[in-house]
Amino acid sequence: MANREEFCPIVAATDLLGQKWTLLIVHFLHTAHPQRLRFCELQAQLGGLNPATLTQRLKLLESEGLVERLEVNSLPLHVEYGLTRKGSDLGPVVEGLNHWGNKWLSSAKSRGKG
Amino acid sequence: MANREEFCPIVAATDLLGQKWTLLIVHFLHTAHPQRLRFCELQAQLGGLNPATLTQRLKLLESEGLVERLEVNSLPLHVEYGLTRKGSDLGPVVEGLNHWGNKWLSSAKSRGKG
Repeated sequence: MANREEFCPIVAATDLLGQKWTLLIVHFLHTAHPQRLRFCELQAQLGGLNPATLTQRLKLLESEGLVERLEVNSLPLHVEYGLTRKGSDLGPVVEGLNHWGNKWLSSAKSRGKG
Repeated sequence: MANREEFCPIVAATDLLGQKWTLLIVHFLHTAHPQRLRFCELQAQLGGLNPATLTQRLKLLESEGLVERLEVNSLPLHVEYGLTRKGSDLGPVVEGLNHWGNKWLSSAKSRGKG
């Protein structure tokens, strides 16, 4: 029984992750080897998503403790983004969603009842 | 490499499922025994969500082929909602999100970096 006054993990997760691109950022960080990407690499993987939107999503994910911003001291000095344990723990869920979307949402399959 | 012109299963799934309550409806149908609920039962499990919102979400899920509306011929005649194969296939992903939200989003744990 869910009471809307109580904490509901699925509603809380939807509120946090329901914005476009958010889960896709987690996906690319989760599947990168090693699990870190620079801003420009993330942007390229997101098909050239505009920098303001990517910055906003990264700040959100950082403030919620899923992504960490790492200042790398090797030359040239630069910043990389990676997943925290909280973010990494979400990886398998995102991959499950990816698999489901590939199976059921592409082209003619999208209305496939069974 | 994701091109925003191409099909991306994670973005498509977020577009479809990112609205509040949508995944929670899939969750309650997935965990019901048997996997069918009447409108009023769903509404009660959703903490008394207003009927207009629940109707809109059910119509969306039905039009996208995740939920089916079943006219039950036993007396009193009534309608039940259940998951299609497409909807049922999403069940484990929703349960994964539920587990993650319970672990990481409740109370003090929500900012837990690792």
